[in-house]
Amino acid sequence: MDPLKGSRNEKRMDVWAGMGVKDLLKQLGGAGYAGKRMAEALEIYKSMLDDKKCIKFVAGAGVLVAGGMKGVLVRLINSGAVDALVLTGAICTHDLIEAFGVKHYQGTSFVDDVELNKEHIFRMYDVFLKREGFSLMEEEVQNNLFPKMPQKEMSPREFLKELGKVVGDKGSILRACADKGVDIYCPSLTDSMLGFQAWMYGQDHPLKVNPQLDIKDFQDLVWEEGRTYGMLILGGGVPKHFIPGMMQASGNSLKYVIQITMDRPEHGGVSGMQIREAKSWGKVSPEGLVCDMRCDYTLAFPILVAGILDYLKEKGQ
Amino acid sequence: MDPLKGSRNEKRMDVWAGMGVKDLLKQLGGAGYAGKRMAEALEIYKSMLDDKKCIKFVAGAGVLVAGGMKGVLVRLINSGAVDALVLTGAICTHDLIEAFGVKHYQGTSFVDDVELNKEHIFRMYDVFLKREGFSLMEEEVQNNLFPKMPQKEMSPREFLKELGKVVGDKGSILRACADKGVDIYCPSLTDSMLGFQAWMYGQDHPLKVNPQLDIKDFQDLVWEEGRTYGMLILGGGVPKHFIPGMMQASGNSLKYVIQITMDRPEHGGVSGMQIREAKSWGKVSPEGLVCDMRCDYTLAFPILVAGILDYLKEKGQ
Amino acid sequence: MDPLKGSRNEKRMDVWAGMGVKDLLKQLGGAGYAGKRMAEALEIYKSMLDDKKCIKFVAGAGVLVAGGMKGVLVRLINSGAVDALVLTGAICTHDLIEAFGVKHYQGTSFVDDVELNKEHIFRMYDVFLKREGFSLMEEEVQNNLFPKMPQKEMSPREFLKELGKVVGDKGSILRACADKGVDIYCPSLTDSMLGFQAWMYGQDHPLKVNPQLDIKDFQDLVWEEGRTYGMLILGGGVPKHFIPGMMQASGNSLKYVIQITMDRPEHGGVSGMQIREAKSWGKVSPEGLVCDMRCDYTLAFPILVAGILDYLKEKGQ
Amino acid sequence: MDPLKGSRNEKRMDVWAGMGVKDLLKQLGGAGYAGKRMAEALEIYKSMLDDKKCIKFVAGAGVLVAGGMKGVLVRLINSGAVDALVLTGAICTHDLIEAFGVKHYQGTSFVDDVELNKEHIFRMYDVFLKREGFSLMEEEVQNNLFPKMPQKEMSPREFLKELGKVVGDKGSILRACADKGVDIYCPSLTDSMLGFQAWMYGQDHPLKVNPQLDIKDFQDLVWEEGRTYGMLILGGGVPKHFIPGMMQASGNSLKYVIQITMDRPEHGGVSGMQIREAKSWGKVSPEGLVCDMRCDYTLAFPILVAGILDYLKEKGQ
Repeated sequence: MDPLKGSRNEKRMDVWAGMGVKDLLKQLGGAGYAGKRMAEALEIYKSMLDDKKCIKFVAGAGVLVAGGMKGVLVRLINSGAVDALVLTGAICTHDLIEAFGVKHYQGTSFVDDVELNKEHIFRMYDVFLKREGFSLMEEEVQNNLFPKMPQKEMSPREFLKELGKVVGDKGSILRACADKGVDIYCPSLTDSMLGFQAWMYGQDHPLKVNPQLDIKDFQDLVWEEGRTYGMLILGGGVPKHFIPGMMQASGNSLKYVIQITMDRPEHGGVSGMQIREAKSWGKVSPEGLVCDMRCDYTLAFPILVAGILDYLKEKGQ
Repeated sequence: MDPLKGSRNEKRMDVWAGMGVKDLLKQLGGAGYAGKRMAEALEIYKSMLDDKKCIKFVAGAGVLVAGGMKGVLVRLINSGAVDALVLTGAICTHDLIEAFGVKHYQGTSFVDDVELNKEHIFRMYDVFLKREGFSLMEEEVQNNLFPKMPQKEMSPREFLKELGKVVGDKGSILRACADKGVDIYCPSLTDSMLGFQAWMYGQDHPLKVNPQLDIKDFQDLVWEEGRTYGMLILGGGVPKHFIPGMMQASGNSLKYVIQITMDRPEHGGVSGMQIREAKSWGKVSPEGLVCDMRCDYTLAFPILVAGILDYLKEKGQ
Repeated sequence: MDPLKGSRNEKRMDVWAGMGVKDLLKQLGGAGYAGKRMAEALEIYKSMLDDKKCIKFVAGAGVLVAGGMKGVLVRLINSGAVDALVLTGAICTHDLIEAFGVKHYQGTSFVDDVELNKEHIFRMYDVFLKREGFSLMEEEVQNNLFPKMPQKEMSPREFLKELGKVVGDKGSILRACADKGVDIYCPSLTDSMLGFQAWMYGQDHPLKVNPQLDIKDFQDLVWEEGRTYGMLILGGGVPKHFIPGMMQASGNSLKYVIQITMDRPEHGGVSGMQIREAKSWGKVSPEGLVCDMRCDYTLAFPILVAGILDYLKEKGQ
Repeated sequence: MDPLKGSRNEKRMDVWAGMGVKDLLKQLGGAGYAGKRMAEALEIYKSMLDDKKCIKFVAGAGVLVAGGMKGVLVRLINSGAVDALVLTGAICTHDLIEAFGVKHYQGTSFVDDVELNKEHIFRMYDVFLKREGFSLMEEEVQNNLFPKMPQKEMSPREFLKELGKVVGDKGSILRACADKGVDIYCPSLTDSMLGFQAWMYGQDHPLKVNPQLDIKDFQDLVWEEGRTYGMLILGGGVPKHFIPGMMQASGNSLKYVIQITMDRPEHGGVSGMQIREAKSWGKVSPEGLVCDMRCDYTLAFPILVAGILDYLKEKGQ
């Protein structure tokens, strides 16, 4: 054993005035811990981009929209650097609310929630959303969007694709995905206001959604021969769990995994699970490249995407 | 303002040889932080039990079975102290695997996952499961259980109820619930091997599951007049999010909430959300009693259940 | 490799009405994660008690007193199950404040700190302390206690021993240690109000404290031939770091380590450090027994101490 | 109440190829959670720089050197943007080890610590250090540096200043501080190998260190009339606790506080304490500006320093 082989680090990192994000990412390669992970995350994503056979997933849970990351994700989608998303229903719901013109506010966590409720303001730690966002969304989807969509049973993937086509706001995730041909899987759509609205509409219309159908759609995607698979995890939950689980079910495995989460592993829950653990299940291949970064993604994700955009430009894409 | 009103604490806690869990819970009332929360959790659960109109939910995610809590939950179910469960598909899957005779092992997290994979052992931090657990489950449900069940489209609730009826092991959660008439909702069933098996079987059988149908089943439950609602959260994820969300959608709110989780709130994800935040949404009533305990539930849940059993005995139930 | 060797777990845990803490600890042996760790912690402490050559340390940081654990620690001290403590200066300060009659209150974290300040109430998350606790402590140590103590330069260990002798409250940690002959090391005494008060008094009195002298006192203790060493860590910080560091400096190592902390390891700080890491440094012996429990100690410590008292009674001590 | 006053956020953040760190920091102002905190941290540091009466502290614990942040901190020191440091003894020790030519390696946390020990490699999560770093440091300080220093009793502040003067490596924190006239306080020096070496040397030389003397040195600094105080916290522990505690003891308070830590607040320990809590103690002034960022500082600190250097350049400094 030579545990130091290939790991010498003599220079350590530097910073300077006028530094670019690209410089920052390079310099972080000389740091340790989350700093180093940030640099590794970009290196793995670059490997995914260089691997022409790679299907690149982003698995997103939590405050992607409420935390202001919508525009960042849309940049990533439009750059062609992602092939499919797996999102929670809540993220799709928040995306629609913003698409209809109701924004999230930067608030505070030190507030009386009962008072907030009287003012019709909903809190997500220190981000606020007016209640009208939900009533407006209900009105819009029930009266304007759902009626324009195919009136049949759909998988969440198909449902979100059709929904994206009729969303007016080009800055929304759903619309950007529809325009770009990037599919969104949403196995837990039921657990969201969008899922609830779809169920309501389906009570007296033929439009229905069945999350089980996402299994087939996903299988169709990953059963193609000769592909490799990569995944960027933002947060945890169902999106983090679904992709590797379906890989295993189809006899495939992930070759590249980047995880950015604040959850912890010691209590065994899947959200904080160490990525290497998935190698025991065969969900990640033995030689799979993994980066396990413990960080709030509202900081790390924009840095990573800026680095990806720099790399794509460098490659002339 | 008198911030000290009603909060004097002169005695602090004590411990002794031969102490009962009941004594421990009482003494913890004199502690601070998680110790105090433990005592508060029991007090709130006792209020739920005393409130004859209260529908009592347990929302479970993570390692309920893998962490050895199956028997503890079954005691709670059999005691009559819980009316409905919301679980992840993974918990239902693990419960079935154990029901078919394959158990979870106490392992270690300091292990080579590639080596484990060669030995066909799957890791959940430091708990191990043999791969054969999954193949056996597949065989059992496909060949023995699904064929005995109603051949139609069902909600996860109905599907799990019918499945529970045909599981042989009385120590399993599914069977105990079926026997006791306790419903299990599973809005994210799709994201599990059980969901996958159901989908597979449904490819050439009329048995289908549609998670969207859990919305209707849940609405039926919570739309009854004059009820109150209480929830014990073990972990986070979809089960934690679904119950309050459906409360809000139906114009109801929770009156009692106990949360036991290791997740943290600052990054805005729902799993670590402070329970009081749900008051801004109206998901928890303004005067709702809440206990927000940051703890691994494999320690706190058995203590709480032991305290509940003591209380039920005291009440002559 | 047989990763399952010796780890079979068929029974899983159970709970029942009338259960004792001793039963609980035994049953938790069938759990996973923090539940299992709780049972392991007792097993390791029992090994320390059975090893007649073992010097048993408790390293305490954080809210030991503010969290209501004072009486629990004093039970442990009086039982003879601990030989030496390493504490933060803040714990010694809080202990004195309570010894002089000012108690900690169970408050709330959802409060306006500026308002609290106007009411002269200090907050420690959701525990409150009246400002008068500090002024009373100042008065007592300056006027009544320091004048009765040896007027010379002392190590924190000697200073705290002499201070403990003149504290009137037998329920205080300092007094219990002095009575029982259990030494308290306090290498970071400077960083506390007690350290500040000692410095103030020393401005015009010969009584001085020098934390560097704790190095010699500690070396005297651990340089004895043929001893083994065990440590229970409550929280992290200097106490967690000092004991293993001084072990290494003296060429010794710990044979038993139980850690109970909520801190996390991934960012490299010592407070959340995985205990096995100390084996690379030689601070813990290669065959050392370690239990690494991620839990708020206000819950786990009283359970552990209750288990220790049960064991001592069983052994007839 | 108008909770939304002044908080409207319509634009949200964007990223692009060729983006500068300055752009990134500005864009993060449109994010939520840690992203937003990153932008706030810079705004508060800029306020400190604009306030000519402000004494600017950096409180550092943990892996500042092991995590590759040495050069970043030295840039900050050399820029004039920091007036005094409070560090752990371990950071000073690591700084000396690197000054003598032994570097930290980027390793892995998935390693057998007993094997590492055989190879004489010490682990700090996934950073490695050769044992010879410590033996070389011992040799250097005992034979070359301590003999050149004043042979008298010193505070840690004076001791580290004199030590910095005789360290050859201009890239070291100690040397940069000595050159720039930036004092380093180290109230817990005793709990470190450097503290141990100083004690060893003092056994037969008049050079001694007494951490209690840092209290006087610190009081001299903060008792000046008409100053304001600001603090950047990297990690937690004694440095985070000492500065506000000494502020309170001297009747002063902090006006600006930026905290970057991964620790959590719910269990009451000081390392994860919410900064606003210090307002109840009067350690932070009622109108004090605070930024409470939950992040591994190996990522956030270099970004912040790059932003500070940009700002200083903009101001023509």
